[in-house]
Amino acid sequence: MRTSLLLVLLAFFNLTSISQNPDETVVRQIFDNALLNQDAYNNLTYLCKETPGRLLGTEASMQAIQYFEDYFHKLGADTVFRQEFKTKAWKHISTTVSIVDGEKEIPLRAVALGPSPSTPEFGIAAEILEVMGLDQLKAIDPELVKGKIVFFNRPVDLTNINTFRAYGGAVGQRARGPALAASLGAAGVLVRSVTTKFDTVPHSGSTRFDSLRVPCAAISFVDADLLTQKLSLDKNLKVRMNIQAEDLEEITSCNLIADLRGNVYPDEYIVVGGHIDAWYNTPGAHDDGAGCAQSADVMRIFKELAISNKRTIRVVLFMDEELFQSGSRAFAQYCADNNISNFLAMETDAGGFTPVGFMVDADDPIVENFAAYQELLEPYGIYYIQKGGSGVDIDPLKKQGVPLIGYRTDSQRYMDIHHSASDTMDKINIRELQLGSGCMAALIYLIDNYGY
Amino acid sequence: MRTSLLLVLLAFFNLTSISQNPDETVVRQIFDNALLNQDAYNNLTYLCKETPGRLLGTEASMQAIQYFEDYFHKLGADTVFRQEFKTKAWKHISTTVSIVDGEKEIPLRAVALGPSPSTPEFGIAAEILEVMGLDQLKAIDPELVKGKIVFFNRPVDLTNINTFRAYGGAVGQRARGPALAASLGAAGVLVRSVTTKFDTVPHSGSTRFDSLRVPCAAISFVDADLLTQKLSLDKNLKVRMNIQAEDLEEITSCNLIADLRGNVYPDEYIVVGGHIDAWYNTPGAHDDGAGCAQSADVMRIFKELAISNKRTIRVVLFMDEELFQSGSRAFAQYCADNNISNFLAMETDAGGFTPVGFMVDADDPIVENFAAYQELLEPYGIYYIQKGGSGVDIDPLKKQGVPLIGYRTDSQRYMDIHHSASDTMDKINIRELQLGSGCMAALIYLIDNYGY
Repeated sequence: MRTSLLLVLLAFFNLTSISQNPDETVVRQIFDNALLNQDAYNNLTYLCKETPGRLLGTEASMQAIQYFEDYFHKLGADTVFRQEFKTKAWKHISTTVSIVDGEKEIPLRAVALGPSPSTPEFGIAAEILEVMGLDQLKAIDPELVKGKIVFFNRPVDLTNINTFRAYGGAVGQRARGPALAASLGAAGVLVRSVTTKFDTVPHSGSTRFDSLRVPCAAISFVDADLLTQKLSLDKNLKVRMNIQAEDLEEITSCNLIADLRGNVYPDEYIVVGGHIDAWYNTPGAHDDGAGCAQSADVMRIFKELAISNKRTIRVVLFMDEELFQSGSRAFAQYCADNNISNFLAMETDAGGFTPVGFMVDADDPIVENFAAYQELLEPYGIYYIQKGGSGVDIDPLKKQGVPLIGYRTDSQRYMDIHHSASDTMDKINIRELQLGSGCMAALIYLIDNYGY
Repeated sequence: MRTSLLLVLLAFFNLTSISQNPDETVVRQIFDNALLNQDAYNNLTYLCKETPGRLLGTEASMQAIQYFEDYFHKLGADTVFRQEFKTKAWKHISTTVSIVDGEKEIPLRAVALGPSPSTPEFGIAAEILEVMGLDQLKAIDPELVKGKIVFFNRPVDLTNINTFRAYGGAVGQRARGPALAASLGAAGVLVRSVTTKFDTVPHSGSTRFDSLRVPCAAISFVDADLLTQKLSLDKNLKVRMNIQAEDLEEITSCNLIADLRGNVYPDEYIVVGGHIDAWYNTPGAHDDGAGCAQSADVMRIFKELAISNKRTIRVVLFMDEELFQSGSRAFAQYCADNNISNFLAMETDAGGFTPVGFMVDADDPIVENFAAYQELLEPYGIYYIQKGGSGVDIDPLKKQGVPLIGYRTDSQRYMDIHHSASDTMDKINIRELQLGSGCMAALIYLIDNYGY
C-alpha cells in the first residue's frame, strides 16, 4: 500500500526528473511521445468521417482497411498484408417502425438488429406482447405469442458501477430474445436499446438465431418508454415494422496485419489489435475506431522511439467483431494452420476513454507476473492489472495457450453511445485516446523486455 | 495488494448481493440512491442555464444563492442561512483585442483577466514584447519593457499526466505576470490561455496585483499561435487592447450555509462544499457548479436514506473562489469568531468527472485513518486516499486545526474547458456527476460514523 501510495504521489511530478531506473525512463518517453503525437487522433478522424457504418462486407470497411494499410507502410512496418477469408455476410437496407394509432402512425426511432431477416415488402403490423426478459417470455403460453410482435423492455441497471456489467445484465434479451420469440411463432421482435442514456437514439447490435428467424429491431430509450405507456392505455395497440435487409451467402473479407519484426525472437508474436468494423448506423469512434487507432499507435511509438523490440509486434485490425466474429475465428485458424507462436495477445475494445487497467486471461503465475508492472504504470492511471476476460477478437487464441490481455478504460460514458449514431468523433478526447496508446505500448514494452 | 485486487474484482458484481458488513451495505445504498436520483443534474442544469457568469457581485451570483436556499429548504435542512460579508469586487464590462495590421485589424479572441483595470476609452495600441515566462521577463532590460504590451506565451506542458499539475506549471505567468509587467512600466499584458485544448476559446482567470496595475487579457490557444507567428514576420507589430471594467469599493455578498443536525454531536460540524461563483465568461458547469450540486446532493442522500449522522453535516456554497477568495476567508473568520468546532471539511472543486480519489490535508495518523476506507470505496472508483492539498475554499480552516479533504476526479478533460465559455452543461455526464455525490457521501458517512 505504501509503495502504491508513493507511486500515486509520483504521478503528480514530471517523472523524467526523478526516474530511477531505465524502465521508468522508457515508460516516461513512451507517454511523452504518445501525448505529443496526433496520428491516432487523425487516423480516427478519418475513420469516422470517411468510413462510417463500416460493417462486414461494405465498401466502407475495405476503405478503412486500405487507409490503415497505407498508414502502416508509411510507418515503415516490416510486413503489411491482408489476411483474407470467406464468410457469410448481412446487409442492412432500411428499417421503419411505427405505432398504428387509429388513422395516424407514430414513428418510433429504430434500428434493425443484425442479421434480421426482411419483412414482406410492405412490412408487418401486429399486436404487441411486452415482456421484461427471456424468462418472462418462456413462462407465457406460446399460443399468446403466435403472430405477435414481442417487445423486450428490460432496462439497463443504472446502479451497476461498471457499465459493461450493466450492459451484460440486459443484453441477453437482444442477443437471444429474437431466436426465442421466433421459436414461439412471433411475427416480429422489438427490443429496448441497451443503453445507459435517456435519449431518442436507438442502439443496434447482433442477435443469434438458430434455424428460425424473425424481423427484429431496437428502439430508443425514450421510444421504449412511449411504447410501454401507449400499451398501458391500449392493450390491443398495433405496431408496424418494415425491415429490408439482405443475406449474403459468401463474401471475401480480411483482417489487416502489420508486423514490426523482433530483434531477438522474430518468430514470437505479440499481437495487439482492435476491430475495424462498425455497425451500419454509427461512425464507430469509440467502438472500435479508437482501438484500431491506438493499436497502430503502439507500432508508431516503438518506431519513433526506436525501442528495440525482442519479439515481433503484430498489429491486427480484426474484421467483423460485431456481426459474426468471422475475422477473429479466421485469424486463430490462420495461426493454427501456420503453427504461429503467439507470445501474447492484447485487445483494446472498451472505448478510447481514460485508462484504468488491464485484465489478464492467463494462468495465475503469468497474471501475477504482469500484475507486478501495475506500480510502474500507476502514475499514468493504470490502477489495476488483474485476472479477467480479455476481448472477443483474441479469445479464440486462448485454446492455443496464448496469454490474453484486455485494455480497460473508464466505462461511465461508453454505454451512452455504444452501437449508436452518437458514437462520433466529438465524443473523443485526444488526451484520453493518447494515454491509451501509451499504456498499451508501455505494458507491451515491459512484457517483451522481461518475458514471463 | 491481494485485498485491493479482491476489491477491484468485487467492483464487477452487484455488491448488494454479497455485502458482508453493514458499512458495505450502507455504502451500496448511498451509491444506488446517488445513481438513480437526478437532483444534482437538474440543479446544475439550472445554474448553467439561468445563472451563467455568476461572478462575485453579480445578480446571477445571488440568483444562484437564492436557488439553492430554496432547494435546501425543500430538502428539509434544519438550518439554512446566508453568511454575509463585505468585500471589494470587480465588474467586467467589455474586452477587445486586435492585431493592427496596416490599415486593417485582425481581432483576437480574448477575455480580460480579473481584476484588470480599464484601458482609456478608446483603448491602447503598442508593440508586443513576447516572453515565455516570468523569469525571461525579469532578465530583460526594463527600458525594453516600458510602454510595450507584454505577451506571456508559455504553453501548458501536455506531457504532464495530471492536468492540474500541467496547469500549475503554466499559470504563474497569468497569476503574477501582469504585476511584474506593471512594475516594469508595461502598457498592457496578453497571456496565452492556460489550457490543454487547441482551439479558439479564451480562458479567463485571476491575476494578483501589488500597488501597480496594468490592463491584461488572455487570448485563445489558436490566437496565441497566430500572434507569435505574426511577430516572427514583423517585430514591430502592434496590438490594440480595449478593456472596460469597474472596481467596486465595497459590496455585501454571502456564502450559503445549510445544516443537517447531528444526532450525537450536533456542535461538531462536517463541512462539505464547493464554490457558487463562476467567471463572467462561462456557465461554470464543471467549475464549480458541479461541486455545489454534489455537495447539496450529499445532504439529500443522508435525508432520503435517513442515515443518522452523529455530527452536523454543513453544506457550504462558497462565494468568490475565483476572484479574491473573500468567501472562504469570511467563513473561516465566522468559525473563529463563534468558536465553531469543525470536525472535518471536504471540498469538491475538481470538476464533475469520474471519481478517482481523495487528498487529505491532515496529520499522518488521520491521513492513515481515512486511507483505510479506500478499499471499501475502490469498487466505486476511489483508487487512492492520500496525503495532499485539499482546496482553496477550505484551506483557511487549516490553521484552526481542521482535517481537510479534497475530492479528486479524472483530470484529462478539465483544462480543455476551465474558465472558458466551453464549460457548459453538455460537458457533464450524469453518471460521473452522480458517482461524485456518492463518493463524497460515502466517505463522510464512514468518517462521521467512526471518527478519527
